[in-house]
Amino acid sequence: MEFFEVVKKRHSIRAFQKKKIEEEKIQKLLEVANSAPSAGDLQAYQIFLVKDEKKKENLAKASWDQDFIAQAPIDLVFCIDPLRSAQRYGKRGETLYSIQDATISCAYVHLAAVDLGLGSVIVGAFDEAEVSRIIDIPLTLRPIIILPIGYPDEKPEKTPRRSLDDLVSEI
Amino acid sequence: MEFFEVVKKRHSIRAFQKKKIEEEKIQKLLEVANSAPSAGDLQAYQIFLVKDEKKKENLAKASWDQDFIAQAPIDLVFCIDPLRSAQRYGKRGETLYSIQDATISCAYVHLAAVDLGLGSVIVGAFDEAEVSRIIDIPLTLRPIIILPIGYPDEKPEKTPRRSLDDLVSEI
Repeated sequence: MEFFEVVKKRHSIRAFQKKKIEEEKIQKLLEVANSAPSAGDLQAYQIFLVKDEKKKENLAKASWDQDFIAQAPIDLVFCIDPLRSAQRYGKRGETLYSIQDATISCAYVHLAAVDLGLGSVIVGAFDEAEVSRIIDIPLTLRPIIILPIGYPDEKPEKTPRRSLDDLVSEI
Repeated sequence: MEFFEVVKKRHSIRAFQKKKIEEEKIQKLLEVANSAPSAGDLQAYQIFLVKDEKKKENLAKASWDQDFIAQAPIDLVFCIDPLRSAQRYGKRGETLYSIQDATISCAYVHLAAVDLGLGSVIVGAFDEAEVSRIIDIPLTLRPIIILPIGYPDEKPEKTPRRSLDDLVSEI
């Protein structure tokens, strides 16, 4: 699909068909994630691919019952690794670059999903400690995004945007 | 251009031709920025489009002499507006969502530039207070990214990536 068409067709999808995602598509999504730019090419994050039904249900509960997280055939949990960036960039790596690295990677997957006929939504509202426990990660990692992905079962309306005049200033 | 081709051709571009960017292309980039998803559709950031030669030179100096910031025909400065997100989401909006909102928007522009034959690089290393002074923003805003954009004057090599096995765990 053309790049600008992908951008135009992108929505936050919160309802998924039961249909599984083909392994080749999952692979493609992960490769796109891995191709995203990061500060100093450090890629200061880890991605956890969750397919296990029980774990997905627990992730949904830890996200204040956003049930589509359990409904989606897969969830990607993006966890920042602040120390990985801090070793080179100090505080700025720890508190900014690591968040940006993971977020850019997630944004790439969210867009790529559209091209593959899939949908997803970037979820930030969850209990981090509980998610960490569910996916059993070390204390050095911090989950910041859950991205449920699947074949869409809804066609959401376009959401509102600020006017360009409000968002952008030329100086 | 096909979406996956855009992703594949994307590089961090740090050398730009003198050639100006057509206004329609700048407009397209800003519209893509504005189409990016954000927490609660709040778009907790502001974008400053800098064309002024003197200001670009000062931005380059404030970025520890990353001269390509002055060389690029335009720079976009992405500033988070933490309070805009905090009003609804509290601390999480202030310290996480606002950064993510601005970063996703910037990631979209960085990709869209490739489709338009342009190049850019996501710059995070600069003196925030100095950049704030140069673009003359209120204290409620915080600049987190400078994105210099222009026609590329280099074809960089592919930069290294972690292996997928290292980056991703299936659980």
